[in-house]
Amino acid sequence: MTRFALTVEFDGRPFMGWQRQPHGASVQGAIEDALHSVTGEAATVHAAGRTDAGVHGLAMRAHVDVAKAITPFRLMEALNARLRPAPVAVLACEEVADDWHARFSCLGRAYEYRIVNRRAPLTFERGLAWQVPQPLDTGAMAEAAQVLVGRHDFTTFRSVHCQSASPVKTLARLDVRRVGDRVMVEAAARSFLHHQVRSMVGCLVLVGLARWSVERLREALVAADRAELGLNAPPDGLFFVAADY
Amino acid sequence: MTRFALTVEFDGRPFMGWQRQPHGASVQGAIEDALHSVTGEAATVHAAGRTDAGVHGLAMRAHVDVAKAITPFRLMEALNARLRPAPVAVLACEEVADDWHARFSCLGRAYEYRIVNRRAPLTFERGLAWQVPQPLDTGAMAEAAQVLVGRHDFTTFRSVHCQSASPVKTLARLDVRRVGDRVMVEAAARSFLHHQVRSMVGCLVLVGLARWSVERLREALVAADRAELGLNAPPDGLFFVAADY
Repeated sequence: MTRFALTVEFDGRPFMGWQRQPHGASVQGAIEDALHSVTGEAATVHAAGRTDAGVHGLAMRAHVDVAKAITPFRLMEALNARLRPAPVAVLACEEVADDWHARFSCLGRAYEYRIVNRRAPLTFERGLAWQVPQPLDTGAMAEAAQVLVGRHDFTTFRSVHCQSASPVKTLARLDVRRVGDRVMVEAAARSFLHHQVRSMVGCLVLVGLARWSVERLREALVAADRAELGLNAPPDGLFFVAADY
Repeated sequence: MTRFALTVEFDGRPFMGWQRQPHGASVQGAIEDALHSVTGEAATVHAAGRTDAGVHGLAMRAHVDVAKAITPFRLMEALNARLRPAPVAVLACEEVADDWHARFSCLGRAYEYRIVNRRAPLTFERGLAWQVPQPLDTGAMAEAAQVLVGRHDFTTFRSVHCQSASPVKTLARLDVRRVGDRVMVEAAARSFLHHQVRSMVGCLVLVGLARWSVERLREALVAADRAELGLNAPPDGLFFVAADY
């Protein structure tokens, strides 16, 4: 058996999420099916993180064990040939040690959330960004983001379906920056709760719209109560961008 | 009659091009139909440039004359509401003088051509970029581009369907830059011949692949002969980015 680490880019629009589902297309399922077609083996692909329906990946990391003798380059090429026409591409493939695990060895994860702040509807980025028509005060959003950075009980920003053992996480970075009418929120942490990034972004947008004060956001965090969540951002704008090992 | 200038973003993938066609969807047709639905008027929309099937627009400029009393903001909002679900959006709308003409008043046009230089297939950018799997020497491409800058007979880089009175054009700028695996070619001129940007990019890619020397490109230009064209880049990667007045 050889363990291969994959770097995967995927457009989440046609998928029910990363994780294989009994009904409906998934990114994991697409890769596992391609792998079966290449190797004849029924292997499980393990990822650094699971993404929800409609969430995208720029560089998801994953691993798989393969019995067939094949070089990383040939495996990458063969997977990409079989993945068509699904919008999933293996950007890199390398041999790793048997104890390297895409999920358990991962020391940090980074997401980017893309907002298009304009009145005009989206064209190229439909399903790839959250269109917010009202002007956003990104200075206020950036200030509010700092309230969330650090070690906190993030229950307010956690899906009821979250399977994490603890709601306490350490948010390493939450940056808000504007380039023209694009507003990008970049989040980094060792790990995140289910829906945490979307929930944080939703509340930052409330601050950007002046519907919430920075103080109101702090109260919502301290409450550690899902009922205090102001707004959950749609999946469209969320991209898994990096996993560190 | 009031003349309105429009700034239009469009994803060219589902269209046969900018220009209205008897059979098949066009960007001009989509806007004119939306306009008719808003005003009840059958007006012609004039653009700074015509784009081919599959070519995109980030900020095409256009104008139209409207008899109905309506503010620029209301016109923009109404057009955008009617354009759905077509991937066409009016980003800006303003009243202009009666003698302002999107095509004839235009003093300069700029295009961007997007190449993704990697082996992995495209996911998000399918139809929005040209995937070139072999490594491109962007230094050589940038050097070769300077051969084309200036006033030349561009017959080699001109479609046989080109309707321009003269093949002599002055190319103001042709820049090649790389950001990671993205290679962008930016072109600016008062006006371009039909297929000129795609033909120039095709030959620059031949230089980037070391299949053509810079000298070979110069010979192709001087020959002023369409038969000397090495390669016409696909429409996918071409974006109309700006019109100056």
